[in-house]
Amino acid sequence: MTTTVRESLRREVLEANLAIPQVGLATLTWGNVSGVDREAGVFVIKPSGVPYEVLTIDDLVTVRLSDGAVVEGDLRPSTDTETHRCLYLAFPSVGGVTHTHSTHAVAFAQAHRDIPVLGTTHADTFNGPIPVTRDLTEEECAKDYEYNTGHVIVDLLDGDDRRAVEVPAAPVAGHGPFTWGATARKSLEHAILCEAVADIALHTMSLSPSAPPPPHLLNRHYTRKHGPDAYYGNPEPAMP
Amino acid sequence: MTTTVRESLRREVLEANLAIPQVGLATLTWGNVSGVDREAGVFVIKPSGVPYEVLTIDDLVTVRLSDGAVVEGDLRPSTDTETHRCLYLAFPSVGGVTHTHSTHAVAFAQAHRDIPVLGTTHADTFNGPIPVTRDLTEEECAKDYEYNTGHVIVDLLDGDDRRAVEVPAAPVAGHGPFTWGATARKSLEHAILCEAVADIALHTMSLSPSAPPPPHLLNRHYTRKHGPDAYYGNPEPAMP
Amino acid sequence: MTTTVRESLRREVLEANLAIPQVGLATLTWGNVSGVDREAGVFVIKPSGVPYEVLTIDDLVTVRLSDGAVVEGDLRPSTDTETHRCLYLAFPSVGGVTHTHSTHAVAFAQAHRDIPVLGTTHADTFNGPIPVTRDLTEEECAKDYEYNTGHVIVDLLDGDDRRAVEVPAAPVAGHGPFTWGATARKSLEHAILCEAVADIALHTMSLSPSAPPPPHLLNRHYTRKHGPDAYYGNPEPAMP
Amino acid sequence: MTTTVRESLRREVLEANLAIPQVGLATLTWGNVSGVDREAGVFVIKPSGVPYEVLTIDDLVTVRLSDGAVVEGDLRPSTDTETHRCLYLAFPSVGGVTHTHSTHAVAFAQAHRDIPVLGTTHADTFNGPIPVTRDLTEEECAKDYEYNTGHVIVDLLDGDDRRAVEVPAAPVAGHGPFTWGATARKSLEHAILCEAVADIALHTMSLSPSAPPPPHLLNRHYTRKHGPDAYYGNPEPAMP
Repeated sequence: MTTTVRESLRREVLEANLAIPQVGLATLTWGNVSGVDREAGVFVIKPSGVPYEVLTIDDLVTVRLSDGAVVEGDLRPSTDTETHRCLYLAFPSVGGVTHTHSTHAVAFAQAHRDIPVLGTTHADTFNGPIPVTRDLTEEECAKDYEYNTGHVIVDLLDGDDRRAVEVPAAPVAGHGPFTWGATARKSLEHAILCEAVADIALHTMSLSPSAPPPPHLLNRHYTRKHGPDAYYGNPEPAMP
Repeated sequence: MTTTVRESLRREVLEANLAIPQVGLATLTWGNVSGVDREAGVFVIKPSGVPYEVLTIDDLVTVRLSDGAVVEGDLRPSTDTETHRCLYLAFPSVGGVTHTHSTHAVAFAQAHRDIPVLGTTHADTFNGPIPVTRDLTEEECAKDYEYNTGHVIVDLLDGDDRRAVEVPAAPVAGHGPFTWGATARKSLEHAILCEAVADIALHTMSLSPSAPPPPHLLNRHYTRKHGPDAYYGNPEPAMP
Repeated sequence: MTTTVRESLRREVLEANLAIPQVGLATLTWGNVSGVDREAGVFVIKPSGVPYEVLTIDDLVTVRLSDGAVVEGDLRPSTDTETHRCLYLAFPSVGGVTHTHSTHAVAFAQAHRDIPVLGTTHADTFNGPIPVTRDLTEEECAKDYEYNTGHVIVDLLDGDDRRAVEVPAAPVAGHGPFTWGATARKSLEHAILCEAVADIALHTMSLSPSAPPPPHLLNRHYTRKHGPDAYYGNPEPAMP
Repeated sequence: MTTTVRESLRREVLEANLAIPQVGLATLTWGNVSGVDREAGVFVIKPSGVPYEVLTIDDLVTVRLSDGAVVEGDLRPSTDTETHRCLYLAFPSVGGVTHTHSTHAVAFAQAHRDIPVLGTTHADTFNGPIPVTRDLTEEECAKDYEYNTGHVIVDLLDGDDRRAVEVPAAPVAGHGPFTWGATARKSLEHAILCEAVADIALHTMSLSPSAPPPPHLLNRHYTRKHGPDAYYGNPEPAMP
């Protein structure tokens, strides 16, 4: 197994991390994005506690998927690295993972309430409510805490990769949202969208305690963007 | 019938689309603006799913009003194109259409609540509450979904062009706001104003469950900006 | 009586108007600031409906204090000009007036609720609650509407210049805030502060329906910034 | 005792003050940061009422710790200088102090409610609720008001330096937050974090009146960033 990671992956991970403060998802050094290279058996992640304004591509850390060992980079990887690793190991479809402390998604995580499906803005991306995990036990906090943080997400989805594809986000109870996707960039997009739908949901709930939209409307929106009958979008331009 | 569209229309549509993220009305690729050239029998609209930061004038798509066929452009038009077309066909006064997922207007759409007239900020632009449409039926979602999304707006206004002029906005239930105006630029302004009055309305309603202002005040504000006795504003400067 | 207005006043009025969108107090062309030159018997104000991004010093309009006639400028003055004039005539201490539709202050205006004094952030600038006016009557709306909008503010303060100095702001019911000060720039500052305290008040009220701070604390903050015993601040730098 | 202050301290204090409006913690001239040089027996602080956009390093004021006398600088120091001095004298661990009127933290101060611990975002920095002080008495307001503002914070923490380290923030009742830290920059970070957790707490409380996370989760987060077992972060880069 080689540990040489594609340069394009490193660039994508850097850009996704730098986008976190730009889109308002994090304060100070909060938040991190990683991207996996499954052939090389490694993933690339932000170092721990480095301010975004000084973060460069050389600060990124390459971590081995099988055991979490650092195989490239001079800095310590994000403290959340083991959570990312757990998600990569559990869900083969996941190519990138993002963690933020974005205001409204964290509010749902702290309130232990799922983010409900209240309209097509949600259904465009998430095929169902965004569920909050259970609390970690005292034992799960005491040992391998970060890996167990991934574990409660895997638990929540019964380790089902299909469910991870359909709802690519989960706020960890009392903590904050982890999101994922086919690529690092996609996982970041899901973090942006998870925060946006949480924000809109809070306003909707203040106007109307219960306003479920018709399922056929939601389904229409999800399927026009996902699956065999999707017709949204154009071929993505090549990365510059 | 020619399909050559005025270059100034294409520029206006491009600029209005690029303004959407600048004024904070949309996330990622959400939102779209179109403008119609009724003489040419076509309208110009944003392509589907293209990020704003790479959108250029050559990406715009020209669509025939009569049947929705693409007559110019290499990309697929916005998935919402048929909604725009339906509104152009139903309302002769409409020269431009904007669709966004702006936070507060979507909250009203999701809560199935009209945006009430609570003051002159609203009455300056909208001559009455901004009404939310009914839900689409299962049949309307199954076939010609996007055209039917326009249809529920036409239904809401009884196909009355005068009403479309007086209240140039309608949040579609469970979805989000469509706005329109004499030009693409005006439809964008109405999207900005619809979001602003929804935001202010939410705060007002948290302070006072019911605070209707006197009708004579509202009427005064609407008529000082619209109709034969209007005295607001100066001649618009020529577009640069 | 001469109508030649000081160039420095025109520059100050231009800068204060341009600051309105920069500090987030207005959407599109909403809002206006004026400044008075009492020796010349005129005031300078923004033209009606001109977008901030194209506004230049030559667009400003000079209006005669005594009768509201335009004495300089090619454009129509702000529709709110007569409200400004009414305030200048009623309150000798006023050197500048600002009108905005800022979100939270408008919410209080629409809810017909005074902005309460909930802490020193408020008391630093406003020596008491910021009171909302009564509604205008049907007659007041029908004739000389804009002048009467000023009149309900004068009414609210019993025409007392001292009260205008102590609480230099009033949201007009169902409409929005007018603020004033010794200069155009000061009136703009009061608009910024009126919006900030309205925003904080809304959050405070959601946490605690009634939480009046001790009067001696409020008084201390007001008097350390105003009156003979003030000790806040340094001499203002000369305008560049 | 010399009063020559390290140039690097002055630069750090300037940068921390300039960051206040950039991160949205203050309006106009509100807010101030200071940093102490305990060897020199002085601290450096922002002058009173100087707008951030014209603030330069030469405007900073050096104040003697023992008696509050100005030992360097042509301008009057911040009116809150005595509050800073009181905190430096009471808590040996404090190297920098920040005061802001940030919206959500002020709301808690005005509502006389502690900012509760609702999740790891809070526990990462604050080892317990962020407590609001008692009101100042009439006597405390009448004489040495600013020093007494510091005194109610010292009172709140029983003068215990260890508690000041564990929860480096306190909103003063009816006023606003003071935060502190090992350096001026750290005190600013705590101001940013205090505002962020107050914001998230308000949203959480609107979703769920009571949602305490498990103590073992909170403790894990605090101890992974603080104390002998901390493993968050990398060595800080040298200041440029």
